[in-house]
Amino acid sequence: MALTPARTMPGVLELLPLDQIAFQRMLDVIRRNYERFGFLPVETPVIEYSDVLLTKSGGETERQVYFVQSTGALGKADEGTPELALRFDLTVPLARYVAEHERDLSFPFRRYQMQKVYRGERAQRGRFREFYQCDIDVIGKDTLSVRYDAEIPAVIYSVFRELAIGPFTIQLNNRKLMRGYFESLGIVDGEQQMLVLREVDKLDKRGADYVRDTLTGEAFGLSAEVAAKILAFVQVRSTTLQDALDKLDALGAGPEAMEQGRSELKEVLGLIHAFGVPQTHYALNLSIARGLDYYTGTVYETTLNDHPQIGSICSGGRYENLAGQYTKSHLPGVGISIGLTRLYWQLRDAGLIDTAKSTVDVLVTQMDEAQLPAYLALAGELRGAGIATEVVLEGGKLGRQFKYADRAGIRFVAVLGEDELARGVVTVKDLRREDQFEVARGELVKTLRVELEQAAAMG
Amino acid sequence: MALTPARTMPGVLELLPLDQIAFQRMLDVIRRNYERFGFLPVETPVIEYSDVLLTKSGGETERQVYFVQSTGALGKADEGTPELALRFDLTVPLARYVAEHERDLSFPFRRYQMQKVYRGERAQRGRFREFYQCDIDVIGKDTLSVRYDAEIPAVIYSVFRELAIGPFTIQLNNRKLMRGYFESLGIVDGEQQMLVLREVDKLDKRGADYVRDTLTGEAFGLSAEVAAKILAFVQVRSTTLQDALDKLDALGAGPEAMEQGRSELKEVLGLIHAFGVPQTHYALNLSIARGLDYYTGTVYETTLNDHPQIGSICSGGRYENLAGQYTKSHLPGVGISIGLTRLYWQLRDAGLIDTAKSTVDVLVTQMDEAQLPAYLALAGELRGAGIATEVVLEGGKLGRQFKYADRAGIRFVAVLGEDELARGVVTVKDLRREDQFEVARGELVKTLRVELEQAAAMG
Repeated sequence: MALTPARTMPGVLELLPLDQIAFQRMLDVIRRNYERFGFLPVETPVIEYSDVLLTKSGGETERQVYFVQSTGALGKADEGTPELALRFDLTVPLARYVAEHERDLSFPFRRYQMQKVYRGERAQRGRFREFYQCDIDVIGKDTLSVRYDAEIPAVIYSVFRELAIGPFTIQLNNRKLMRGYFESLGIVDGEQQMLVLREVDKLDKRGADYVRDTLTGEAFGLSAEVAAKILAFVQVRSTTLQDALDKLDALGAGPEAMEQGRSELKEVLGLIHAFGVPQTHYALNLSIARGLDYYTGTVYETTLNDHPQIGSICSGGRYENLAGQYTKSHLPGVGISIGLTRLYWQLRDAGLIDTAKSTVDVLVTQMDEAQLPAYLALAGELRGAGIATEVVLEGGKLGRQFKYADRAGIRFVAVLGEDELARGVVTVKDLRREDQFEVARGELVKTLRVELEQAAAMG
Repeated sequence: MALTPARTMPGVLELLPLDQIAFQRMLDVIRRNYERFGFLPVETPVIEYSDVLLTKSGGETERQVYFVQSTGALGKADEGTPELALRFDLTVPLARYVAEHERDLSFPFRRYQMQKVYRGERAQRGRFREFYQCDIDVIGKDTLSVRYDAEIPAVIYSVFRELAIGPFTIQLNNRKLMRGYFESLGIVDGEQQMLVLREVDKLDKRGADYVRDTLTGEAFGLSAEVAAKILAFVQVRSTTLQDALDKLDALGAGPEAMEQGRSELKEVLGLIHAFGVPQTHYALNLSIARGLDYYTGTVYETTLNDHPQIGSICSGGRYENLAGQYTKSHLPGVGISIGLTRLYWQLRDAGLIDTAKSTVDVLVTQMDEAQLPAYLALAGELRGAGIATEVVLEGGKLGRQFKYADRAGIRFVAVLGEDELARGVVTVKDLRREDQFEVARGELVKTLRVELEQAAAMG
């Protein structure tokens, strides 16, 4: 029989077990922190009805959608858009979920969702067709206090502190402030404001000259003076909480939208402080706009101080109405998303991911086939104490068994030979410390537990 | 704008948050136990190349496959089978994974995988188009000791004991024993043996009369005597380990395959004992065959003693060669699968799932807006101690805040009013015990931790 080549499509990140463990640890940290802040888990189906998924989205998204057809539906001509498709984000499914289950949910509804989404991207390094999004959102019924906008950075801080991938800054802005400021410069048309907003969002990537040229160019036709004012505005960054408040005041009076944005930002900044986020970890950045039309107030981006090239690792903001396409209820909300697949890939690329540790703590070796029951009893005790343990069931040379443990990233190897059995002890080899010790059989669980707890505490 | 009805397709299980929490707890228990036995995590992409997925499968599977097309690939006529499809199980992706990454894996390769699979089933109560499979497999290179067949029941025992869904029995059989026995009755053709095997597998569902009639009927044409012998064989069940060994001996001598099967089963049964699985939790059941052609030796099914109608909640077995369609390497293995979506659904249906508990431990109420920083500081302390805490940020009547906690399944409500603040205490309402107590501010974390740990220990 001819062999089929074993392969996956481009744009998916399939990991070897030790890498998967590192990835899973990140997922666990994110989930633990989301839960700690009182967010509830939701999972939605990967497959949704196409008409449900595509109510809102523009052409770009539609071109990237994966459609799904069961065998029976294939080949039926003239069908137009297939009935089913894979979700391309978690926000549209959230809107559908909240609209569908509205009567069964308590509001403000706080949910987290950590699942994969699918986009038919062009195959290209760093572009993923399947990737994890780890989202939180708080959804209000009719209204939602701006205070929730201050809670989100507290969650971001908590997540990335525990992920321990280096110093980071949560950057904040407010779309009302931006649009109000543009209005004060004579840009009163909402559409035009959005276009300017999208241009200035490119500031950190393309630089001031590019943005200035665009704004004064044919497409926008703004005066040099107005462009200069916009550039001065979007270049505002703060260093401390007081500095942020001062810089907001220094912008001068403006139209209603601007005053509203400023007051929201001030309240949010003050509360972020009360939430215990240190001033070193958040800042005003008036160029942050986020591309999507969808955001209406506070917007967030988070960057790694030492790796600016990675870009934002966690973004989001406040929106006016989550599910207007499905329900007449008014559902304002605020949320963020961590694109974990891309983040993991970039961190690994930058050498920031450690992959040497296994989930397996102990390998019990096999010296003598006849003693298998003793090995199994030992493993049973370790497992009973929550210590992940593998037993060599097939035997072979001890050297090979050690090599297997080493290659698999298992830290402890337990040896229970004739001599150890006679003396009621176990020899333990610590492959991480390249050390070896003997411990009384009855003390083994306790000893290893202490070692493993210490290692866990040290990260 | 006309509203799009918010809905999901039939055959998916979308849960409300408290149900999702109960489901997630089951996933966590399974994962924890898989890891405790030294299995390593693997995740594979949901989308695979169709030719990779469909090398082996027969017509039935093919009719149930979901094919995937990106927008660009749609509408191109005469394409035949689309290039991409959704996985319908985790075994084919495992085979592809092991073949693709063979040189980077250590053997025996022990992996667990807990992901969703997709089948275009007819819409019907209890049939799922999207469902979780929670699999473990041990894959050997060239050979794999039958001892690994004994480890699998130890994992099953560990998982279902901790899931605490009632008494269960792991039922064992061996295909070599069955085929060898049929051979001893003159059924020597391998194909014919497989057909008989599939019939007797229906014994527990359809009853002895049905199976006898089929075997002596036109399709098989076996004599009444042979059919009676087969029925006597497949009705063998054991009560204890010794009883199992005795009943295997009582089958009498047989051809080589039968002797090999018997010797494997005896070794497996003895080792299951050494693995610490109590005799109350496993038994010989010589009617178990599993439908798939794929199994060659030990086969497992697990049933809930008090809910036989649920059928097998965890099944699997030994196979000769995992990935013959992708690689020339010989890769024997043994594994099991838990279909968690269906199991959860059935358990809930039978009233065996408790959904009243939230992941949120504490709700900090808001009495006075001006004291928000004090509430946030309190929540920060609780979260720092690993206690999941939600703060009411929007205020409103205290009664409504309590009602929210109650409805959301949150156990503790912390009240920090003027009086409490002045006296340096917190009033805690325990909604589960319908009790209320006052505790010094500095003692709150410790007190709640103790309560929560006790509750966790009691399940």
